[in-house]
Amino acid sequence: MPRSSWIASATIACAAVRRRSGRTWGPFGGITAALPLRAIQEHPRRLGEPLALTVNFLTPIADRDFDIALHGVRTNRTNQHWAVELIQDDQPKTNATAVFGLRRDTWSGTEAKPPAVPGPEDVVATSFPDMIVWARQYDTRFVEGSVPGQDAAPASSSTTTLWVRDGQSRPIDFAALTALCDVFYPRAFLRVGHFVPAGTITMTTYFHADQPQLEVQGDGYVLGSARANRFSRGYFDQTAEIWGRDGTTLLATTQQFVYFKE
Amino acid sequence: MPRSSWIASATIACAAVRRRSGRTWGPFGGITAALPLRAIQEHPRRLGEPLALTVNFLTPIADRDFDIALHGVRTNRTNQHWAVELIQDDQPKTNATAVFGLRRDTWSGTEAKPPAVPGPEDVVATSFPDMIVWARQYDTRFVEGSVPGQDAAPASSSTTTLWVRDGQSRPIDFAALTALCDVFYPRAFLRVGHFVPAGTITMTTYFHADQPQLEVQGDGYVLGSARANRFSRGYFDQTAEIWGRDGTTLLATTQQFVYFKE
Repeated sequence: MPRSSWIASATIACAAVRRRSGRTWGPFGGITAALPLRAIQEHPRRLGEPLALTVNFLTPIADRDFDIALHGVRTNRTNQHWAVELIQDDQPKTNATAVFGLRRDTWSGTEAKPPAVPGPEDVVATSFPDMIVWARQYDTRFVEGSVPGQDAAPASSSTTTLWVRDGQSRPIDFAALTALCDVFYPRAFLRVGHFVPAGTITMTTYFHADQPQLEVQGDGYVLGSARANRFSRGYFDQTAEIWGRDGTTLLATTQQFVYFKE
Repeated sequence: MPRSSWIASATIACAAVRRRSGRTWGPFGGITAALPLRAIQEHPRRLGEPLALTVNFLTPIADRDFDIALHGVRTNRTNQHWAVELIQDDQPKTNATAVFGLRRDTWSGTEAKPPAVPGPEDVVATSFPDMIVWARQYDTRFVEGSVPGQDAAPASSSTTTLWVRDGQSRPIDFAALTALCDVFYPRAFLRVGHFVPAGTITMTTYFHADQPQLEVQGDGYVLGSARANRFSRGYFDQTAEIWGRDGTTLLATTQQFVYFKE
């Protein structure tokens, strides 16, 4: 594939998706991460399914039009590398690299263990605070580690586990799965017991599910669980898994590195 | 910072580092990942220390000269984004994005638990098979999950835990830490009990340690532990932590997505 820039359709696709992003707090990181993925999916030379995606949040995106430029970096026999820039006011606001590829039958097995949780119908629906506009798009049922309230004490664990689905009952696709990987609020909130300035700098997602495994999920709940490994000198990491409704199909694993002040 | 290309010094630095790479099996992925990081570190406009690095292995690098092109994508008040391409025969062979930044004192804490292991002096030194040329550069002491031998059975766990240090007693720096993040061989070998065709497609590392915390390690052993979450349809992920000699300082966390056949 020649190194090429390809913009038009991506902009159109993004405009549609953007309506889901909040206005008060700027766009939801999950939508920003889903945009490059969706743009590549629509490219006529795209090979196979999403395998991996890294998104770097360079600077906030303003609530107006932007372009997405796709560069086909390398096409191999079974996989394909992409570089993407989201451009606004002639400046890159977000960039990303992605790997797409063909899947083939091989030995398989899941080694990670899903958290032991009650089903979504046995968990009370708890929303994010109202000011977090994007969260209104989701039906969220926290099993553990919901957003700390006004009188919350610091928690000893940074783990959040929740059932989540699209509030409008749309079937999950790879773009929606990408956005869901950022549904967890910053882990520092839990450990210090209140909101602090924080923002994701970079986020990487690996797609374990193939298209049929994703289609089986329909518009049902998926199970997400996230935690941090270390908080140190202004930064922490956040690692999460997204499991299917059956609690045994690992759909995606994701990591992010986050800036915080406290 | 203007978007700029900067090549010369990086090539010189890489030539020095490259001598550590193997010839039989092509360059060690860890060295390939360390190259862009080292190149950015030498750039006169570099801000602060490494925070995050994603490296995409586009196609094998041949055993001859190459160039590294650095692009300063965005400089914010406390962090800086880079895009890097390793170019050989006028083609990108590896690309990367990196975040560097300033560290400030904040609330801190480590939530991940290091594996309970004996000290390195109580573990027998076991080498990688001789054909893995790059591994000769390291002093490796496997606590769990060493490379499967000829009569190995499939293991129920993909975990490898080992003490490791540079064979030439060089103090660890960020480039060396980056390379160490790829010291684990493909997890599929353990689960199927023998070598299979496998190769890292993309690798992301988060740097938790700051410069002083890294300097404390000197040329001593560090503790690495890696495992997979899921193997499915030709791909698996590999997650690892690198701990300091004290077993309590988490130096880096790293993830990779790997192609395999079986």
